[in-house]
Amino acid sequence: MKKKVLLTGFEPFGGERINPSWEAVKQLHGEVIDDVTLVAEQIPTVFGKSVAVLETLVQQHNPDIVICIGQAGGRLHITPERVAINLDDARIPDNQGNQPIDEPIVDKGPVAYWSTIPIKRIVENMKESNIPASVSHTAGTFVCNHIFYGLMDYIARTSSSIRGGFIHIPFIPEQTINKEAPSLSLETIVNGVKIAAVTAAKYDSDIHIVGGTTH
Amino acid sequence: MKKKVLLTGFEPFGGERINPSWEAVKQLHGEVIDDVTLVAEQIPTVFGKSVAVLETLVQQHNPDIVICIGQAGGRLHITPERVAINLDDARIPDNQGNQPIDEPIVDKGPVAYWSTIPIKRIVENMKESNIPASVSHTAGTFVCNHIFYGLMDYIARTSSSIRGGFIHIPFIPEQTINKEAPSLSLETIVNGVKIAAVTAAKYDSDIHIVGGTTH
Amino acid sequence: MKKKVLLTGFEPFGGERINPSWEAVKQLHGEVIDDVTLVAEQIPTVFGKSVAVLETLVQQHNPDIVICIGQAGGRLHITPERVAINLDDARIPDNQGNQPIDEPIVDKGPVAYWSTIPIKRIVENMKESNIPASVSHTAGTFVCNHIFYGLMDYIARTSSSIRGGFIHIPFIPEQTINKEAPSLSLETIVNGVKIAAVTAAKYDSDIHIVGGTTH
Amino acid sequence: MKKKVLLTGFEPFGGERINPSWEAVKQLHGEVIDDVTLVAEQIPTVFGKSVAVLETLVQQHNPDIVICIGQAGGRLHITPERVAINLDDARIPDNQGNQPIDEPIVDKGPVAYWSTIPIKRIVENMKESNIPASVSHTAGTFVCNHIFYGLMDYIARTSSSIRGGFIHIPFIPEQTINKEAPSLSLETIVNGVKIAAVTAAKYDSDIHIVGGTTH
Repeated sequence: MKKKVLLTGFEPFGGERINPSWEAVKQLHGEVIDDVTLVAEQIPTVFGKSVAVLETLVQQHNPDIVICIGQAGGRLHITPERVAINLDDARIPDNQGNQPIDEPIVDKGPVAYWSTIPIKRIVENMKESNIPASVSHTAGTFVCNHIFYGLMDYIARTSSSIRGGFIHIPFIPEQTINKEAPSLSLETIVNGVKIAAVTAAKYDSDIHIVGGTTH
Repeated sequence: MKKKVLLTGFEPFGGERINPSWEAVKQLHGEVIDDVTLVAEQIPTVFGKSVAVLETLVQQHNPDIVICIGQAGGRLHITPERVAINLDDARIPDNQGNQPIDEPIVDKGPVAYWSTIPIKRIVENMKESNIPASVSHTAGTFVCNHIFYGLMDYIARTSSSIRGGFIHIPFIPEQTINKEAPSLSLETIVNGVKIAAVTAAKYDSDIHIVGGTTH
Repeated sequence: MKKKVLLTGFEPFGGERINPSWEAVKQLHGEVIDDVTLVAEQIPTVFGKSVAVLETLVQQHNPDIVICIGQAGGRLHITPERVAINLDDARIPDNQGNQPIDEPIVDKGPVAYWSTIPIKRIVENMKESNIPASVSHTAGTFVCNHIFYGLMDYIARTSSSIRGGFIHIPFIPEQTINKEAPSLSLETIVNGVKIAAVTAAKYDSDIHIVGGTTH
Repeated sequence: MKKKVLLTGFEPFGGERINPSWEAVKQLHGEVIDDVTLVAEQIPTVFGKSVAVLETLVQQHNPDIVICIGQAGGRLHITPERVAINLDDARIPDNQGNQPIDEPIVDKGPVAYWSTIPIKRIVENMKESNIPASVSHTAGTFVCNHIFYGLMDYIARTSSSIRGGFIHIPFIPEQTINKEAPSLSLETIVNGVKIAAVTAAKYDSDIHIVGGTTH
């Protein structure tokens, strides 16, 4: 059965010249793997506007799956996120200077939404391809969590059958030349995101394996 | 106004001989600071049973505030947790050999509950006392998150006015002699927990300062 | 002017199935870049024998430059080493079960030898190619430091004009699937080693730029 | 037999308001443990001048042992250093604005000197007192390594029977309030330095146990 996956990447933020999330997904735009078509779009790293742009893109592309990708500088692994929380709490200003502190994303929205893509299956498939991956239980409180929550709330509000998720990726090496931080190559990240998209398109349900964290 | 704060610490787990959460809170048992009385109890590091024991202790002590403390080996800071999620996903077995994978803590419970103690105010007060502290947005998926969710669900179910929260603490030095891991001294942790208890007892509301994370 | 560079990689050790140092250098065997010919050989991860094998290889290939490469699992960067010390102190047994403790590599040898390849120039050239790199001031006390000291002592004893050095490299991603450790892609490491070899062949002298460490 | 140990700590540097090395050793000034008398002095964090001041202090106090202590912000453990190298390579300016790059400390001096205090015995005694400790094989290339090399060269030049060494210590908690870095409490560091001084005074020879590093 044909499936369409919308992949989004962000604009650079926080002083970086590039954002590996956009560098990765743009390479996948238009790819068709088996019956899965990948579409890639860029999202502004801005509270509010990011979700508005995403909603428009979802209506335009009418995908079966939406996976937003974001940079998590300092992480070692590609990390599918488990849960989005209803909280904006910006450590730094976004790309339009907004810096909300302890504000709900959606007034009277639920405290949190679960990802509806099979995160453990995605992690396992990445690892089988020698890509360092693990499940994360926090997407932070910046625009990454914001768009993830916004996406899941849109799906809930519109009673849509779309499944949605968010994946954080590490820096790529060129970003770490003058920092002490881990990285993964862009090629590895592109492969990881492709595996995530195809896995999410093919499987509704997750697998039952160990993957939690003690804290 | 007199207030009572129930502090809980866990049994050792994961191969450790001690649990710094219990070592810390037991030193505070019976302390009265201004009008705030501290009571300390130990909780088994066991899914299910930990929450049952906690509920009994809450009924017995009738506290105004409950703060559960747990060990987060590898963290640098004392970290008040922002949110508890409705998920058991054990990377290791608990102290009775249970290892739930991707199970809800409370069937049909909400995805998550917020802490109702003033976490940023607690962090600021710790930092003013030279104690490394920051807000955390994940309590993991083991017994620590389990009891935190169980506590907040109990408060919600019983429409209680109790305020509740969870604080993760690092290893203490004696646990790191043969590991590469950071630690804080037990004295520092005891002081930090005391500050948290008194701050939570005195203030319902939180302060409005930067404290989020980009991921 | 034609130059020959002998590159060595080690056998896997410490429970790893591969050693990225050998995976990298074997890809460069036989390459000729401008007038620089690269030769790659594998060395046993064994005290004593490693140096004996290296001496034989040097006599056989008659190179202008020798650069030994070794795995430094846990490091973020490719790190040319500044100094070799006259000490074997094995935290784990080598591949033949030897575990020397606090023994000199060469009786009455000097405490240490400097690298004679231009380490800062190599680091700068790697960084210009977007490869995370920095100078290291310790090669440890296992077989990596052993062969580095053995190489420099051989050059000193034989009054040879060969220039020598040692470069530590991080894990590659497939080694970190089940560990919390940084990695660089094999392609990045291969490029880094090639840059090191060509830079060392073309330049005797180093550049004068900041690159030290406070500790 | 009576012994005197001279302990030195540095001035703050690198933007810090305090230096835990001085905070620690000044608490030990004048202490007598069994037959071991401790004397503490502060040293300027300045290339050249630090060694000149140290030589004067050695002549003034006439100690049996000299142990210089320095801050290694970012390290987890108290780390007795194994080896001092003949190199100044300053990543940042010292407290008088000097920033030497790749210069020898002593012209025609040996590449390196070994510590002559029993570093593994010191580490073991610290660990028995629940103090995280391990041997380090690099003291860096800043003023810490500079004074360590200067001390050992002075001892060699003057054919002195003094034994000398250097110990790096982590930050203390108050320095890490606004950084992501590990720390040890000042009390733990004071105890560790005292153990080092007494151990060095009582034992010329080291113990034969595993303590090396693979890199």
